[in-house]
Amino acid sequence: MALKVTAEEMGPFLDEVFPQVRGMFGIDRLDEDLLVMRLFVKDEHLRPGGTVSGPSMFALADVAAYVATMARIGQEALAVTTNCSIDFMRKPEAGADLLAQCRVLKLGRALSVCDVQMFSEGGTEPVARASLTYSLPPRR
Amino acid sequence: MALKVTAEEMGPFLDEVFPQVRGMFGIDRLDEDLLVMRLFVKDEHLRPGGTVSGPSMFALADVAAYVATMARIGQEALAVTTNCSIDFMRKPEAGADLLAQCRVLKLGRALSVCDVQMFSEGGTEPVARASLTYSLPPRR
Amino acid sequence: MALKVTAEEMGPFLDEVFPQVRGMFGIDRLDEDLLVMRLFVKDEHLRPGGTVSGPSMFALADVAAYVATMARIGQEALAVTTNCSIDFMRKPEAGADLLAQCRVLKLGRALSVCDVQMFSEGGTEPVARASLTYSLPPRR
Amino acid sequence: MALKVTAEEMGPFLDEVFPQVRGMFGIDRLDEDLLVMRLFVKDEHLRPGGTVSGPSMFALADVAAYVATMARIGQEALAVTTNCSIDFMRKPEAGADLLAQCRVLKLGRALSVCDVQMFSEGGTEPVARASLTYSLPPRR
Repeated sequence: MALKVTAEEMGPFLDEVFPQVRGMFGIDRLDEDLLVMRLFVKDEHLRPGGTVSGPSMFALADVAAYVATMARIGQEALAVTTNCSIDFMRKPEAGADLLAQCRVLKLGRALSVCDVQMFSEGGTEPVARASLTYSLPPRR
Repeated sequence: MALKVTAEEMGPFLDEVFPQVRGMFGIDRLDEDLLVMRLFVKDEHLRPGGTVSGPSMFALADVAAYVATMARIGQEALAVTTNCSIDFMRKPEAGADLLAQCRVLKLGRALSVCDVQMFSEGGTEPVARASLTYSLPPRR
Repeated sequence: MALKVTAEEMGPFLDEVFPQVRGMFGIDRLDEDLLVMRLFVKDEHLRPGGTVSGPSMFALADVAAYVATMARIGQEALAVTTNCSIDFMRKPEAGADLLAQCRVLKLGRALSVCDVQMFSEGGTEPVARASLTYSLPPRR
Repeated sequence: MALKVTAEEMGPFLDEVFPQVRGMFGIDRLDEDLLVMRLFVKDEHLRPGGTVSGPSMFALADVAAYVATMARIGQEALAVTTNCSIDFMRKPEAGADLLAQCRVLKLGRALSVCDVQMFSEGGTEPVARASLTYSLPPRR
């Protein structure tokens, strides 16, 4: 499905919609097949032992699903997460950013369903996976 | 099941284990039936429109399940979340703290399963529900 | 919220909509606070060791959420499950029916969210919990 | 990770462990990268309109995760499902078998986490996705 928004356009839009997380995320890749979203890991995202906290991983999965959906329907601040299921499988590596690979499994009239796998940068085994459902506003 | 840790003891333990979230949460009630955990809602937890962000609600559910589990097995920093499923059902009220009611559905040898319902303070309908599984370290 | 359908009316409706599961389920209680749905456990629902199979428990949770939703919106064969998260926590008792306690946490315009806890009849600890989301057809 | 059990060996094992579902499932492919498990769709799996029922899809996902895990740890009837999250995204096609593509995301000491996508045979878009966690018995 052709994208309506590019990675370059998405950054300023995110800053506007989510000013609290400005500078927290980056977009490494955004095309029809895959979105790769980056969490710039900082001290505030860590738990003792240097591992990235669960809420930070959730935040990464959530914003990735939002961006992948927005890229397809156009910028709509009103889409809201209705469900997320997340499995934490391995301890992220200390000192590495976290990368989320996000695919849109379904884009319906009312719901978007995304699948996310997260990796420590440079790692080959997923540290977490998540599936998220967004409720979409009525299209104009 | 009798608790091994009181609300008074839990606060300093949380500050030690999760220094990044110091001052973010409070314990309103902790007994064998129910834990009520409070998110002191501040600007950093909000999204446009004044609603509490999804990651903040996830963080509240996650820490509530951790505290409810710790209260039963004793303070063990090593318990880790393995799974969370969360449904976001209503928009939290602006300007109100968020309260999580957490119950331990199962405390097994290796896993703890908790159920959480979240309410805006003063509200009667849940804004979100979550179930969380913690993997427990081998008991001493 | 007042119910539009009684337990007595629901039985024949279920038989019509789900002829394959005729005689599999019963309604022990249906009012505004709670639905209690019963799985008449038979050999076909068992796994080795006499425990009720996961798919049978899923089926019970799914039909309970459907019935609780239908009771509120009126009989609508078109509602469909969009998401289910289920935790299997204890081995059901051999030779006992399974009872699902189902509550509607949210009944929105487009989605219904239900919470289900399942018990072996006579047991006090839940053998499983589930949350289910149904997508609702546009109301007339 | 090298497999300990072949597709040919798995069939008789499943028949022995799950005699109730004998003839319900087949294995199209089983190697280190992917398991493809088939639900032979019959009338008993259908809902009105010819769509495959939710419990049948759950059963397919559950047995796929079990087989993929068993293939790696060796035949262990004692592994049990502890959690499943499933998204139903599209209506399966009437008259087509259902194929589950299952990957093992993590095989730990105590838990196995699998990802499953389900397709109607011949279809290109997933009808459902599921993630499942199995609790593993202590290894010998």
